[in-house]
Amino acid sequence: MVINNMLRVGIVGYGNVGKGAALAVTHAPDMELSAIFTRRDPGSIVAPAGVPVFSFDDALSKTSDIDVMLLCGGSATDLPEQGPYFAKHFNIVDSFDTHAKIPEYLASVDAVAKNKTAVIASGWDPGLFSLMRVFSEAVLPNGSTYTFWGKGVSQGHSDAIRRIDGVRNAVQYTIPVDAAVEAVRSGQSPVFETRDKHLRECFVVADESADRALIEKAIKEMPNYFSDYDTTVTFIDENELLKSHSKMPHGGLVMRSGVTDSPNSHVIEFSLALESNPEFTASILVAYARAAYRLAKEGKFGAKTVFDIPPVYLAEKSRDEIIRELL
Amino acid sequence: MVINNMLRVGIVGYGNVGKGAALAVTHAPDMELSAIFTRRDPGSIVAPAGVPVFSFDDALSKTSDIDVMLLCGGSATDLPEQGPYFAKHFNIVDSFDTHAKIPEYLASVDAVAKNKTAVIASGWDPGLFSLMRVFSEAVLPNGSTYTFWGKGVSQGHSDAIRRIDGVRNAVQYTIPVDAAVEAVRSGQSPVFETRDKHLRECFVVADESADRALIEKAIKEMPNYFSDYDTTVTFIDENELLKSHSKMPHGGLVMRSGVTDSPNSHVIEFSLALESNPEFTASILVAYARAAYRLAKEGKFGAKTVFDIPPVYLAEKSRDEIIRELL
Repeated sequence: MVINNMLRVGIVGYGNVGKGAALAVTHAPDMELSAIFTRRDPGSIVAPAGVPVFSFDDALSKTSDIDVMLLCGGSATDLPEQGPYFAKHFNIVDSFDTHAKIPEYLASVDAVAKNKTAVIASGWDPGLFSLMRVFSEAVLPNGSTYTFWGKGVSQGHSDAIRRIDGVRNAVQYTIPVDAAVEAVRSGQSPVFETRDKHLRECFVVADESADRALIEKAIKEMPNYFSDYDTTVTFIDENELLKSHSKMPHGGLVMRSGVTDSPNSHVIEFSLALESNPEFTASILVAYARAAYRLAKEGKFGAKTVFDIPPVYLAEKSRDEIIRELL
Repeated sequence: MVINNMLRVGIVGYGNVGKGAALAVTHAPDMELSAIFTRRDPGSIVAPAGVPVFSFDDALSKTSDIDVMLLCGGSATDLPEQGPYFAKHFNIVDSFDTHAKIPEYLASVDAVAKNKTAVIASGWDPGLFSLMRVFSEAVLPNGSTYTFWGKGVSQGHSDAIRRIDGVRNAVQYTIPVDAAVEAVRSGQSPVFETRDKHLRECFVVADESADRALIEKAIKEMPNYFSDYDTTVTFIDENELLKSHSKMPHGGLVMRSGVTDSPNSHVIEFSLALESNPEFTASILVAYARAAYRLAKEGKFGAKTVFDIPPVYLAEKSRDEIIRELL
């Protein structure tokens, strides 16, 4: 084996985020992609040249070959199992994003990460957006924080539409309401109903025999997903859907407006405009992989969040360099 | 003395930032303002009710009464002396902002902060903007970062105008060029000349006998300050200046655009719109005072930057609370 100082990354799960992670590692000069682990047949995976693909079940035999595992599975069923399973044997990073279950997930990972470092929930929301909420609340305690998502594809909402009878395919965009964003930006601290903050825009491919009016009604009245929102439904054909709606853009804004001494108000705004949600999410995982590796080398084990990690741990450059160049 | 768990803050220097710091402490439920230290006659300072004002020279007798000193003096002459002087005896926070001299200043403070924690350069630039530069470069290594300042008053440029013969008073605004901001926002990675990024807008009160054309020429041709910029000069009277230009707004943007897999590009944007630059700067100092205090309690002494501090140290809420509420 060639000895070098590269951080050796493993990827668990080779879907959209996993593929994004493989790309992101190529942009990190201090890392190399050592292996991909999959629950599918390893032979069915088209991996980057030179990168071996192993079965999920072989992972524990590779503990000495991987410095950090990027867990790229989903939060609903993959990560609740994989997080604790891998954190016992590897330093891990994931983008667990079921907000309500984070404390429970954090505890389950922390319980096993006795000699490993596990950075959880480190995508953009939770992740970068969470950081912004903490920074902005800390510096403007007398104020209000707002999070807007989009314009972007919501997989959950797209799936919900696809389950309706007569729907062949669908893509749903979540879109912040401009007037709401502008109201916050103007330094007001408005109170919003759900409907005031986001629109839902649906592109639907229906079976030829389907009743489109019924489908539209079923979407717009669907509780939790659509009934509390202003929703538009546009029927298109499959070709148009593939051509115009197969990318995975996303983004959003975290804003806080607050007052120091009345009437002096201030607005802090952080926004993301992403052409590929999974590729950007994976890029954050890769940055936090560097942090996980460094923390582990210092013996700082256990489950960590973005709140626990000094920003210097993310930088490929040295502390002296970022102080000189970026402070 | 009443025993409580409040973080006891001292303020050194009671100018605009010092006054902002006194306000910001009132917004922090876990802090109290214990004393103000001044180089002026303490009797001449109008302090908040109940807050004692001491001479600068009495500070060292108060080491047991103050948990963190906020150094609110200027970077040109005050902080290079006061930082090392106070960091030997107190935990300190400052907003040292002479970018080129930060490494030297950091070293001078670190050399004496053997049993104290000193957080330096923790305003908004350097400070919050620096954090954004590090985060965004870490997650999008293949890209370009841009910092825009304004719209806001530049004291240095206002002072430079005031030194011109025949000028009685002046206020200079630095303004980002909209087209430049939009070019970055669109995901391009444009290369700018100095002139492309910022405009300079000057409001000048001239002596009645002064030659206004000469003043305008002197401003527009002033090297370093104005000659590389598109500059507008508007003559107004003193009343108008006081009425419309005596506030201290500021702000700006940090933007990074980068590519994951061509052509997928992403834009990260952080912006501040501040109605009072000194009050907002002071609010950041107060948040970092909380961090300095906690670091010191853990024995993490020496000079720190915003890059070195886990975000959780800034929050008034507990780690569990911010994980539950803000992650």
